[in-house]
Amino acid sequence: MISYAMEPGPVHLIRLNTDADLLDGITAFAEENEITTAWLTYLGAVRRASLRYYDQEEQEYRDFVIEEPLEVVSGVGNVSIVEGRPFVHTHAAFADSAGAAFGGHLNTGTIVWAIEIRLQRLLGPDIVRLPDDCTSLDLWGGTL
Amino acid sequence: MISYAMEPGPVHLIRLNTDADLLDGITAFAEENEITTAWLTYLGAVRRASLRYYDQEEQEYRDFVIEEPLEVVSGVGNVSIVEGRPFVHTHAAFADSAGAAFGGHLNTGTIVWAIEIRLQRLLGPDIVRLPDDCTSLDLWGGTL
Amino acid sequence: MISYAMEPGPVHLIRLNTDADLLDGITAFAEENEITTAWLTYLGAVRRASLRYYDQEEQEYRDFVIEEPLEVVSGVGNVSIVEGRPFVHTHAAFADSAGAAFGGHLNTGTIVWAIEIRLQRLLGPDIVRLPDDCTSLDLWGGTL
Repeated sequence: MISYAMEPGPVHLIRLNTDADLLDGITAFAEENEITTAWLTYLGAVRRASLRYYDQEEQEYRDFVIEEPLEVVSGVGNVSIVEGRPFVHTHAAFADSAGAAFGGHLNTGTIVWAIEIRLQRLLGPDIVRLPDDCTSLDLWGGTL
Repeated sequence: MISYAMEPGPVHLIRLNTDADLLDGITAFAEENEITTAWLTYLGAVRRASLRYYDQEEQEYRDFVIEEPLEVVSGVGNVSIVEGRPFVHTHAAFADSAGAAFGGHLNTGTIVWAIEIRLQRLLGPDIVRLPDDCTSLDLWGGTL
Repeated sequence: MISYAMEPGPVHLIRLNTDADLLDGITAFAEENEITTAWLTYLGAVRRASLRYYDQEEQEYRDFVIEEPLEVVSGVGNVSIVEGRPFVHTHAAFADSAGAAFGGHLNTGTIVWAIEIRLQRLLGPDIVRLPDDCTSLDLWGGTL
């Protein structure tokens, strides 16, 4: 187990524009505001969802798209540093017109209908993702 | 993109009573405590779920009810101002006895079995929802 | 309705190790750090999920296991006191390789692939769970 003790910082409430890319929009906000370590939750709706599932055996992502308007019932994620720049890692759950729920790792290509985000800066060390041998993922492991 | 920089305020941990209306209960708490801008997450269980899906093409809500006891696996939402009063916007994911997940925009008529909420006041401008031409929704757009 | 006004405390960002037990890992962190009242959200992936559904009529839990690698699309929960010790209550939503979502009350036996947690201490009274006659659950009801 690795843990980092941080102090709660400012909270940004963010509304993304219709037709924005959800993942790119969050990343752009982090870059423009020089946010290096943060936690976020969000809700809203999207025109389509672009998701990934990590195949733990093959150690690679499987990408898929849900090509219909969906509610975003729960989004959670964080910002940390990869190769010196802010990197957004977020998962989300979605629901269709019948209420059925889907989810996964958020990929680019998820198009906003209306999204409301709470992103809180966390004050302390800047947390850096490093390659993890066990999972072949970039996981928290260093600090700046 | 619109964003508001807020400072984190007090956190209210709230337990709603069995048979309360989940959405009305959160709204009542906000009104009684004069909470104008806040973020909330919650978990628990309900006797039934009353949800909405927004039809993006027709620009109107489709309402539906799930008439069985469900776990609330994830609730997320916020409080902002509509027509001068606190307005609660929240989405939630639910799971049935087989673990299947459902979700949507929380409507009145969702009846509490046991619910635990974290609601944090956000200090700064009071955020106001205004009609949005593109989506026909009330979205964050003004401040008091 | 019962509510407790708390001040936001330090935020712990926690990465659990592959093959750890998710619920036991959070509980161990709380015990080792003497955390009595906190709120947490998390995301990641697991090798298998071990969940519970509360049968509201019979007033007992129904346990089930999903024996496959899953994304954790949303986890939410809290720490409070039961019988003098930190007790973790958390629900989570998961998604499989097709994106289908499942969820419930997190049980021991959920095995971590990679998990990132935000756990925030809440400063104020230590909140105690007490037996609730109506639901036969331990619910927030006392303070230390």
